[in-house]
Amino acid sequence: MNYYAQPIAKLINELSKLPGIGNKTAQRLAFFIVNMPKDQAKDLTEAIGGVKETIGLCTICGNLTDKDPCSICSSHRRDRSVICVVKDPRDVVAMEKMQEYNGLYHVLHGAISPMQGIGPDDIRIKELLSRLEDDELKEVILATNPDVEGEATAMYIARLIKPLGILTTRIAHGIPVGGDLEYADQITLQKSFEGRREV
Amino acid sequence: MNYYAQPIAKLINELSKLPGIGNKTAQRLAFFIVNMPKDQAKDLTEAIGGVKETIGLCTICGNLTDKDPCSICSSHRRDRSVICVVKDPRDVVAMEKMQEYNGLYHVLHGAISPMQGIGPDDIRIKELLSRLEDDELKEVILATNPDVEGEATAMYIARLIKPLGILTTRIAHGIPVGGDLEYADQITLQKSFEGRREV
Repeated sequence: MNYYAQPIAKLINELSKLPGIGNKTAQRLAFFIVNMPKDQAKDLTEAIGGVKETIGLCTICGNLTDKDPCSICSSHRRDRSVICVVKDPRDVVAMEKMQEYNGLYHVLHGAISPMQGIGPDDIRIKELLSRLEDDELKEVILATNPDVEGEATAMYIARLIKPLGILTTRIAHGIPVGGDLEYADQITLQKSFEGRREV
Repeated sequence: MNYYAQPIAKLINELSKLPGIGNKTAQRLAFFIVNMPKDQAKDLTEAIGGVKETIGLCTICGNLTDKDPCSICSSHRRDRSVICVVKDPRDVVAMEKMQEYNGLYHVLHGAISPMQGIGPDDIRIKELLSRLEDDELKEVILATNPDVEGEATAMYIARLIKPLGILTTRIAHGIPVGGDLEYADQITLQKSFEGRREV
């Protein structure tokens, strides 16, 4: 049985394909869009079309960008002696929001996961290695996630880079700021213990 | 500071105007859309454009439709002796899903609310009254929400219709099926008591 006019049913169907949008939310969004001013709906469709047309990957770092090379890779104010390796473009945003890091990035677009059939050749490791020939480069920071895949990826890359004499570091794991020892899981606690530093 | 390429920032901004979509969710949706196959993104923009171009209000009942009169008003299999009055098009969907009601609808597009400056002339009451001249019509069911505005609207309409000799009914309020007397609020309990029927 069709409860909606066909164009509304189609919109609900398309919206419910988005992540985290179930049928009820899709219905609510669809009715909102139906009642939206026409030019606002046009802004929305143009914004969606816009990213599909203009956004691609930076050929150097692999980050999402509308110009190539991206604004970070082409900036003269960034420190070219450090590359921070992350899993995906969202991680670059998280790092940039921190406003502490001023080096370059390398986006792998995935992590090594034999379970999912993702090997070293399926993510952008080769592209990373070709960037290491730059004499300016002093350090590679491995900022993949602290989960099984992220650790495996970091270990794999570290083993490739170390022989080249470039400093290779891994971000620290431990109790989050504001966290509580009592409620931390064992592995996090263990990592935080291993990573202890002199005060 | 701009963390995103400009087209992505624009998309995040547009998405976060939707109801229930905060900045984090908008960001997640935007990255999902960036990674979507191009034709799927096109389906989405076309679906949004589609509702804006084709969906209007049925001139008879006021429901959202892509043809005028809508499929319910123009159907020969609906019972033309009953009109169910609801607040908005979503209520029509809820009633239709029930699969019990086979009459016509009238969508008010709002409820009388002096607090928000919405009077009887701001909702589609006049259009309802002009439909009452049909000789086939036997009953008007007032299915506005059981809140202050919905009750006021139902009372107002009932007072206009009663003198015309048309049966005017109000949907029952009471304990929801599966509900618990102990946890029902006082007013619901009172309504359920008032609406008691012989068994």
